[in-house]
Amino acid sequence: MAAMLKVYADRLSQPSRALIIFCRVNKLDFEEVTVNLGKGQHRTPEFNKINPMGQVPVIVDGRFRLFESHAILRYLATVFPGVPDHWYPVDLFTRAKIESILDWHHSNLRRGAESAEVSVANDHVRRGKEQALNGNPQPSIADLSLVCEIMQLELVGDERRDSILGPREKIGAWMENVKKATSPHFEEAHELIFKMKAWLSADRVKTVSKL
Amino acid sequence: MAAMLKVYADRLSQPSRALIIFCRVNKLDFEEVTVNLGKGQHRTPEFNKINPMGQVPVIVDGRFRLFESHAILRYLATVFPGVPDHWYPVDLFTRAKIESILDWHHSNLRRGAESAEVSVANDHVRRGKEQALNGNPQPSIADLSLVCEIMQLELVGDERRDSILGPREKIGAWMENVKKATSPHFEEAHELIFKMKAWLSADRVKTVSKL
Repeated sequence: MAAMLKVYADRLSQPSRALIIFCRVNKLDFEEVTVNLGKGQHRTPEFNKINPMGQVPVIVDGRFRLFESHAILRYLATVFPGVPDHWYPVDLFTRAKIESILDWHHSNLRRGAESAEVSVANDHVRRGKEQALNGNPQPSIADLSLVCEIMQLELVGDERRDSILGPREKIGAWMENVKKATSPHFEEAHELIFKMKAWLSADRVKTVSKL
Repeated sequence: MAAMLKVYADRLSQPSRALIIFCRVNKLDFEEVTVNLGKGQHRTPEFNKINPMGQVPVIVDGRFRLFESHAILRYLATVFPGVPDHWYPVDLFTRAKIESILDWHHSNLRRGAESAEVSVANDHVRRGKEQALNGNPQPSIADLSLVCEIMQLELVGDERRDSILGPREKIGAWMENVKKATSPHFEEAHELIFKMKAWLSADRVKTVSKL
C-alpha cells in the first residue's frame, strides 16, 4: 500500500535532509518525492498545487498539507505515535529552549552557515546542556536541523570548512553525536551532498589545470 | 510585589511590541524593562547577563530565561493559565498551520516588511481561513506577530505604505481585525512608532524646506 505521508524534498537542501533523516530514524511510513530545485521542478504547475509557495520540503499527510521544515518536524514528532520524547520534549521548559533555538536558527544561521553565526551556534552548544547534545545521545529536532545546516559547509571547500569549524571543537563533538544518533540515515541522506562536493572539487581541479 | 515575569523590550522593535500586546491583552502579571537599542543598551555588560545574544525581546520568568519572540509567545501561551486557546491552539492541525506561518514569517517577512513578501502574506491571509483571521475575531500568535511586523511600514512613508498595502484589501481587513481584538493595547504599544513616524516626517519637511 502506498504510504499516506508524502515528503516532497530535494536532498541538496538542508531542511529537506533533516526531515528525511527524521522520518527514517523514527521509521515513519513515508514516501519521498524528489523535487529537483536545480531543474526548476518546484516551479511546475503540478508542484504549485502541492505548495503554492514553491518551497521544499513540504508534506502531504492524507488531507493535510504543511510546509516549513521546522513546522513539519514539530508536527511529525507530535502526531506520529512512537516518536521518542527527546525529539520534541513535552516538558514546557525544555521545549521552550528548543523553540528558541529553532527560531534563532531561522533568523540567523539560515542566512549562511558560512558566516560568523557558526561561532554563535558554538556558543549555544557550549552554554545549553538542555538545548544541544553535549554528550547526550538524544538529539532534538533543533539539533538535527542545525547540524544539517552546518553540513552545507561541505560545499565550500575543506580548507574553508576547517577554518570555520576547526577552532570550535564543541561543534565538532556535537555534530558527531548527532550523526551517531541518526546513523546510518544521516550518512545516507548526505550522499548527494558528498557527490556534489566531489564534483565541485573535480571541476575546480580541472579549472586550475586549464590556467 | 514585583512581577515575577520580566519582559526586556524596545517598542521600536516589532517582535517586542507583539510580545507586550500579548501580555497586556492576556493580563499577564509582568514588568516591562525598556532596552533602548538606539542607545546600545543591548550591548551593555548588564544586558549581556540577561541575554548574551544581545537581542530583544527576552524574558526572565523566575529562574527561566528565554529569547526569540516566537518561542516566548509559545511559552507564555502555554505556561500561563487562562490564556485563551485561540492564541496557540492545542488542536494538532491548527497548531501546525500556525507554526508554519510563524516559521515562514521568520525566514521571509522579517527580511523586510517593505518587500514583495507582503504580497505573499496577503496570499496567506486569503488562502488559510484557519491560519489567519479572515473575519474571525480570534487572533493567534502568528496573526499578532505578522501584523506587528507589517506595522513597521508606518515608518516608510504613507505613500509607500499605501502603494504596498492599498491593493491588498484582505491584508487591511485582517490587520483591522487583529487591532480590534487587541485594542486598546495594540494602539498603546504602537504609540512610539507613531511618534517616530511624526518625527521622521517633520524631519523630512525640514529637509525639504531647506533645499
